[in-house]
Amino acid sequence: MNDYVRIFDTTLRDGEQSPGATMTSKEKLEVAKTLSRLGVDIIEAGFPAASPDDLRAVKTIAETVGREQVIGRPSSEPPTICGLARATKGDLDKCWEAIAPAQKPRIHTFLATSPIHREHKLRMSKAEVVARIREMVGYARSLCEDIEFSPEDAGRTEMEFLYEALAAAIEAGATTLNIPDTVGYTLPHEYGERIRLIKENVPGIERCVISVHCHDDLGLATANSLSGVLNGARQVEVAINGIGERAGNTSLEEIAMAIQTRRALLGLRTGIDSTQLTRASRLVSKVTGMVVQPNKAIVGANAFAHESGIHQDGMLKNEETYEIMRPETVGASRTHLVLGKHSGRHAFGARLGELGYPVEGDNLDKAFARFKALADKKKRITDADLIAVVSDELYRPVEHLRLDGLQVACGSMGLPTATVRLRSGGAKVGENDAEDAIHVRACVGTGPVDAVFKAIDEVAAEIGLHPDGVELLEYTVTSVTEGIDALGEVSVRVRSRGEDEDQLNPQREDTSQRVYHGHGTDTDIIVASAKAYLSALNRLVAARAAQQKAA
Amino acid sequence: MNDYVRIFDTTLRDGEQSPGATMTSKEKLEVAKTLSRLGVDIIEAGFPAASPDDLRAVKTIAETVGREQVIGRPSSEPPTICGLARATKGDLDKCWEAIAPAQKPRIHTFLATSPIHREHKLRMSKAEVVARIREMVGYARSLCEDIEFSPEDAGRTEMEFLYEALAAAIEAGATTLNIPDTVGYTLPHEYGERIRLIKENVPGIERCVISVHCHDDLGLATANSLSGVLNGARQVEVAINGIGERAGNTSLEEIAMAIQTRRALLGLRTGIDSTQLTRASRLVSKVTGMVVQPNKAIVGANAFAHESGIHQDGMLKNEETYEIMRPETVGASRTHLVLGKHSGRHAFGARLGELGYPVEGDNLDKAFARFKALADKKKRITDADLIAVVSDELYRPVEHLRLDGLQVACGSMGLPTATVRLRSGGAKVGENDAEDAIHVRACVGTGPVDAVFKAIDEVAAEIGLHPDGVELLEYTVTSVTEGIDALGEVSVRVRSRGEDEDQLNPQREDTSQRVYHGHGTDTDIIVASAKAYLSALNRLVAARAAQQKAA
Repeated sequence: MNDYVRIFDTTLRDGEQSPGATMTSKEKLEVAKTLSRLGVDIIEAGFPAASPDDLRAVKTIAETVGREQVIGRPSSEPPTICGLARATKGDLDKCWEAIAPAQKPRIHTFLATSPIHREHKLRMSKAEVVARIREMVGYARSLCEDIEFSPEDAGRTEMEFLYEALAAAIEAGATTLNIPDTVGYTLPHEYGERIRLIKENVPGIERCVISVHCHDDLGLATANSLSGVLNGARQVEVAINGIGERAGNTSLEEIAMAIQTRRALLGLRTGIDSTQLTRASRLVSKVTGMVVQPNKAIVGANAFAHESGIHQDGMLKNEETYEIMRPETVGASRTHLVLGKHSGRHAFGARLGELGYPVEGDNLDKAFARFKALADKKKRITDADLIAVVSDELYRPVEHLRLDGLQVACGSMGLPTATVRLRSGGAKVGENDAEDAIHVRACVGTGPVDAVFKAIDEVAAEIGLHPDGVELLEYTVTSVTEGIDALGEVSVRVRSRGEDEDQLNPQREDTSQRVYHGHGTDTDIIVASAKAYLSALNRLVAARAAQQKAA
Repeated sequence: MNDYVRIFDTTLRDGEQSPGATMTSKEKLEVAKTLSRLGVDIIEAGFPAASPDDLRAVKTIAETVGREQVIGRPSSEPPTICGLARATKGDLDKCWEAIAPAQKPRIHTFLATSPIHREHKLRMSKAEVVARIREMVGYARSLCEDIEFSPEDAGRTEMEFLYEALAAAIEAGATTLNIPDTVGYTLPHEYGERIRLIKENVPGIERCVISVHCHDDLGLATANSLSGVLNGARQVEVAINGIGERAGNTSLEEIAMAIQTRRALLGLRTGIDSTQLTRASRLVSKVTGMVVQPNKAIVGANAFAHESGIHQDGMLKNEETYEIMRPETVGASRTHLVLGKHSGRHAFGARLGELGYPVEGDNLDKAFARFKALADKKKRITDADLIAVVSDELYRPVEHLRLDGLQVACGSMGLPTATVRLRSGGAKVGENDAEDAIHVRACVGTGPVDAVFKAIDEVAAEIGLHPDGVELLEYTVTSVTEGIDALGEVSVRVRSRGEDEDQLNPQREDTSQRVYHGHGTDTDIIVASAKAYLSALNRLVAARAAQQKAA
């Protein structure tokens, strides 16, 4: 049996379904590049039939990351780009349209096989389900050579029928069979047993790769995936930081490090470059707004903190003997004090390139201007500061409304008051500014952030940009770096009060309303709050416009 | 074999060893009460020999939670109160002094058994290690009937010697044998196998309870613990939210829900009242400052979000058939809008009692005053607001320096400036205020928070409270509740610049310097930031005073 375990990353598909983790196309592309650099074998880039925006985002990834040799990628081939599709011709056609430009495209199609899904959702008999699998997997195979099929809710499907359904998919041309633990409550020995039975009982399975897809509802996703691999699976579906619906998917970093650290015992390997893990974790946390707890395995802030003296001692003496991860292995070592206020544009650009942010031209100029402004305020500029500066430039959505000035008075002795000056008109910074309309508004709030948000809301309503107002669901600030003069990064999640139920994405059929995330960085956290709120508002307005265009 | 799995919680011992998770005695007591209410069998309350403060905290818990029937506890007996002790007479005596007042005391003692520990740390032969175990477990047993013994680094100990060491502990009187996975990289099948071998090969083991203690470095702690239980362990060592050194311990909530949700398959049970899990998780997150990521199993904000329609459908039709957790099962259902500005003191007190915060007398008056002030600013007061209000009262450390007034001007167009008015003198609010010294200071900073912290630092240095200054390691703000007018909760971690290496706590021998955590709540996040910073500073000053007294 082959010892290579394929890593199939679904951060951009299942991960993006986490409430509020919605990413812009630009952010998705950035994440895809990072996944390629990390050495992921298959990138599930999205669900093209969900919306024209989703299709476009997947297509862009197929055309770029799916064809290019991203600098730093450990493999000489680009990753496979995969799209999800229901078992219908419409979905499969849209999926193929999106992924076809990739050098190695894959269609991932699914159909539920459990009694409850057959009866209540599909209203189909067993024979009809098998016929649909044959027909649609066959149709998918006529478009694309690499086909993955998932029997949805496999865990609650009668085993005999599951064998039959999987055999039909294989006969029709499926090359990878994925066994999702949809309910998320399987125990490791139970899930492993199921994989073993499938391997032993499905005709033709020896020609296919078995894939495992586990959810973490009981904190067992990594263990369940490993148990599947120990019983013959050779693909693991994962997401960075374990994000995804409810308690999320298997963590890429946990499964990769379990296989790497315990290689002697398991005899298995993956294509992951573990030194990229920390950086990938931070990027995904930033663009999705999903924080990583300090005690998260591998990528949490404390994961390597407080190693006891005796461990260090043991490592120094017997590093090869004891299988212990070191911070450097996952790229978690800290480099401080890289640039100061006298550093030039070239040094700045070069350092960004080293950090994996190859910024050029206009974007570099803007980022450099922000860097200089920061260096005037802050003595020590660290890598984390640089990344914050550049990603604020890279991930800014179309700006329907832009912060032009802010003045705040607050404290325990008065009425917190904010005055905002905003520009509307969509002109880029420094370009046709004169054409922009300028709006000034002052508001009193329960605190400075409340006052700022109210003032922004009033302007947005007045100019008809978003008359319904938004509901603030979550507000967090973290300091990007250590030190009192650190950059503060504000993250907000908002939901439109007026938005209808989202009917466009069938995967989201039952979420009440879409949640939008925004972030902003500044040494003044009130200014950062205003930026974050505007970025969420702009994202919401853009998404609504796209929806209306699609409808 | 008995089907009852004991839950041994070490949030207050191993959990408190997370960097910065240091708790005050008052907070420890509050956590212990919550653990009792949750149905925990054994509470490891601390490491009494670490410092006089630690001894006092454990003793207080033994005298109260160890003797009382905490309202809501599912069992009619109080929990066992356990203290940790190295295998020395000095440690064991101090441990016994602390836990003796409990109705059911337990001493947990440990000695390393692996070659590397024997050679490099202990400098003892195998025979000497066994002799020390016999002597010290025997001495412990002469003090206390309930003795737990842990062979530290059992995972790297030769199996034959491990059997010998454990047999010696049993002969000397140990009643529980704990097998720590100290290195944290064991895989489930491997760890389970080790437990099975111990159960089969150690003479006298049938008279003892086998305990599992796993760390989450590869994200496998819950699976490893379950594997241990499936192989005969009947005690699991856990922490709320899985906090602890590095990536932390097994999560109490995950192991409890795995056993409860899969009862039909496992045939096991615990004494945990799962409906208390969410509340316990939030309390521990608050007092330790360790955030819980939204995709954390069981207690994360998204753990029950976005259940797909078909699941709900299935549950409504077949609730008994499908083993699915509901938010109510873990106490995660939301109750909004419980009190408004016209609610009286009685309704307020009653609601706090229902929420598990039985506040009385002075504390109730203070909390009620804060509630009224909040109700003037905020329309809808939710349970989360109430808990924030009351816990700010309950968990305030001794106030060497207290916020009396704050005035801030900031924004993108000027120099962020803060003016603070502080009181020193230690008088309680409203009591001998006239005796207090008042200090007013204005500072300019890179942002409003920086300006406030600088002004506080200058006052603290001027009055000689803390001349060395502190280093800000982490700064976070989260909104306690949804809505723009929400209460903001600020959490900071600081480290003293002047503090020497902490020599007092042998468990912390290799951490460079202690980290202190502080939090503050206000609708104005700048005011909340000032409160948080002062609370961390007061905590740091108190700890230093205690250290100097002990030295």
